[in-house]
Amino acid sequence: MHKAYVLGIEMTKFTRDPRLRIEKMGAEAVWGAIKEAGIDLKDIQEVYCGNVYNGVGVGQKVMVEVGYMGMPIINLENACSSGSNAVREIYLGVTSGRIDVGLAVGVENLTSVIKGPLVDEDDLEGAMGNSFTAIYAQRARRYMWEYGLKPEHLAKISVNNKRNAYYNEKASYGELIDIATVLNSRMVADPLHLYDCNTNADGAAAAVIVSEKITKRIGGKPVEIVASSLRSGKLPDRFIDMTFEDVTHRTAQDAYKQAGIGPKDIEFAEVHDCFTIAEILRVEGLGLCERGGMVKWIEDGTIELTGKRPINPSGGLLGKGHPIGATGIAQIYEICKQLRGEAGKRQIPGARIGLAMNRGGAVAGIEANACTVTILRGE
Amino acid sequence: MHKAYVLGIEMTKFTRDPRLRIEKMGAEAVWGAIKEAGIDLKDIQEVYCGNVYNGVGVGQKVMVEVGYMGMPIINLENACSSGSNAVREIYLGVTSGRIDVGLAVGVENLTSVIKGPLVDEDDLEGAMGNSFTAIYAQRARRYMWEYGLKPEHLAKISVNNKRNAYYNEKASYGELIDIATVLNSRMVADPLHLYDCNTNADGAAAAVIVSEKITKRIGGKPVEIVASSLRSGKLPDRFIDMTFEDVTHRTAQDAYKQAGIGPKDIEFAEVHDCFTIAEILRVEGLGLCERGGMVKWIEDGTIELTGKRPINPSGGLLGKGHPIGATGIAQIYEICKQLRGEAGKRQIPGARIGLAMNRGGAVAGIEANACTVTILRGE
Repeated sequence: MHKAYVLGIEMTKFTRDPRLRIEKMGAEAVWGAIKEAGIDLKDIQEVYCGNVYNGVGVGQKVMVEVGYMGMPIINLENACSSGSNAVREIYLGVTSGRIDVGLAVGVENLTSVIKGPLVDEDDLEGAMGNSFTAIYAQRARRYMWEYGLKPEHLAKISVNNKRNAYYNEKASYGELIDIATVLNSRMVADPLHLYDCNTNADGAAAAVIVSEKITKRIGGKPVEIVASSLRSGKLPDRFIDMTFEDVTHRTAQDAYKQAGIGPKDIEFAEVHDCFTIAEILRVEGLGLCERGGMVKWIEDGTIELTGKRPINPSGGLLGKGHPIGATGIAQIYEICKQLRGEAGKRQIPGARIGLAMNRGGAVAGIEANACTVTILRGE
Repeated sequence: MHKAYVLGIEMTKFTRDPRLRIEKMGAEAVWGAIKEAGIDLKDIQEVYCGNVYNGVGVGQKVMVEVGYMGMPIINLENACSSGSNAVREIYLGVTSGRIDVGLAVGVENLTSVIKGPLVDEDDLEGAMGNSFTAIYAQRARRYMWEYGLKPEHLAKISVNNKRNAYYNEKASYGELIDIATVLNSRMVADPLHLYDCNTNADGAAAAVIVSEKITKRIGGKPVEIVASSLRSGKLPDRFIDMTFEDVTHRTAQDAYKQAGIGPKDIEFAEVHDCFTIAEILRVEGLGLCERGGMVKWIEDGTIELTGKRPINPSGGLLGKGHPIGATGIAQIYEICKQLRGEAGKRQIPGARIGLAMNRGGAVAGIEANACTVTILRGE
């Protein structure tokens, strides 16, 4: 198997502006990634584009705006995993030897399409009120009962992620707040307050992924992708075990096997914190700590930038906002920035191995449409 | 590189019924393909699903209905090429050695979503009336001027494809008509009459694609995929040359190279005949005959079932109807049926090598979002 590297990666500032056009946002990210990679636009052999809600030919529209066409362009949809799914496809193209230079792009104008919470109109349960927010609230309650989690613990995750985002110029929800701010914010679905919930947003991210041959020719600051796994969910995890994510576990195990490492080797991670409780479930599903262990990790600051296992140094979805098609690549953007020592005030000293975990969707009652785990290693 | 085979393939009868649910249609096709392949549902290692207009998680909804989840499921959108794009991804998975058993599914409930002609709301030209039908009418006019094509030639393609479809139980637009029927049908966009245009429809198709190892274990009637290529368009071909399709040419050339054969080796083909003129442009773009050569091929019956180079033995889009996500796999279904000698009254005697050509979309003024060419070889 060939090796694959991120040679250039860029994201737009995530924000809320329904007027932002997907082709403009996408092109901004693509141009940034190409410039950083130091490649020629014509070197790109394949493009995979992740998007959920913006219609037909999104990748083509972006590439027309970028200014070059002709290579195969394929659009992917896998709910909130769409962007990292695009990275997986390019990774597979490079590692199989099919291509030497590929482009993964993720983009979403979400605020012009979705005004309230995301509910599939075919999802009877969701239509009757059991939206994502309600389901995560139930999972939080169960976790509280099992492991002694308190609303203050949840709040501290929000405080942490929004503080990280405060030092991230690409994030729109960075704030220096305290636990009281979270607990005094409007209750959305008990025990989740407004500050426990992520925000629909608009944005794009793109990554140029290349073979070893290209890194040797161009140089630059390549970050190796040592694992890229995707799995889809089976039954809803909440029907099996409300506080443990089977699909996250299965995807992570596959990724660790690919990388030849274990969860203890992961120094920091970006995880899909659509809600504060989600961050807890993800970290434990990944096996970064044992079940229930996040209570202590929150208390003792392990997951903070200065802690032993920083989680969501970028600010996560809570701190950046969540333009669903772009989110997965934005996570990988942060991993690359950290591994290259370019994260500024968010820098985790000496970071060498990071993991990005993304998941999305729950159609027809399954646990998740897809979960992705990407592991990257710096020089 | 490993070899890849279609071991089981199925399609629903293409029809128009907005009440048909994607998961039901998809599951019918998937179950048929699995049964024919003689594999266990749990053997499927990856699923790619092509769909354009039916929202989030289509592949997941289909697989929940089928009754098994957990393998990676990825949804693709590439306009009318979505289904054949799904086949390409599974083909790449098998030929790269990543998987031994994959499932490509294409499905569309189009009639509940699209009531009139397909026009992208972002496409200014289309919104002002230059719809696909208008563009193809212009191309037909230019072809008439260049090569002496007459409305009767176009009509004869419709007669041929609808006659082929008459012998195809999966087609809804089969009819034994004559040239006068076409010429007397309502004019849609001069010179294209109603019978020169394909019909939006609903349906699904699925293919189980496996490695050589699996064919040796299971037997069955494997059909080898000897090439699978996908390219996206550059400028609109009508701005370069209205009667020649650059993207069709480029994709076909790549496919011939993969297969190690030339266009003269292609014994029959399914091509994307969204309009009668489209069939002409595709056959010539593929290089099956020289430019302008289709006039003679139509006259002398070369493209008929009893001719030397049958085109669209299934009836094509004109004869079957066009549920866009499913169309690409339905083309491959016909190639497999023919190569296995199972095409009944449509059978082309001794058929050994067939080609399926599909293309779709033209966002932002480009020639096509994607074109696919798949070449298959029988035992």
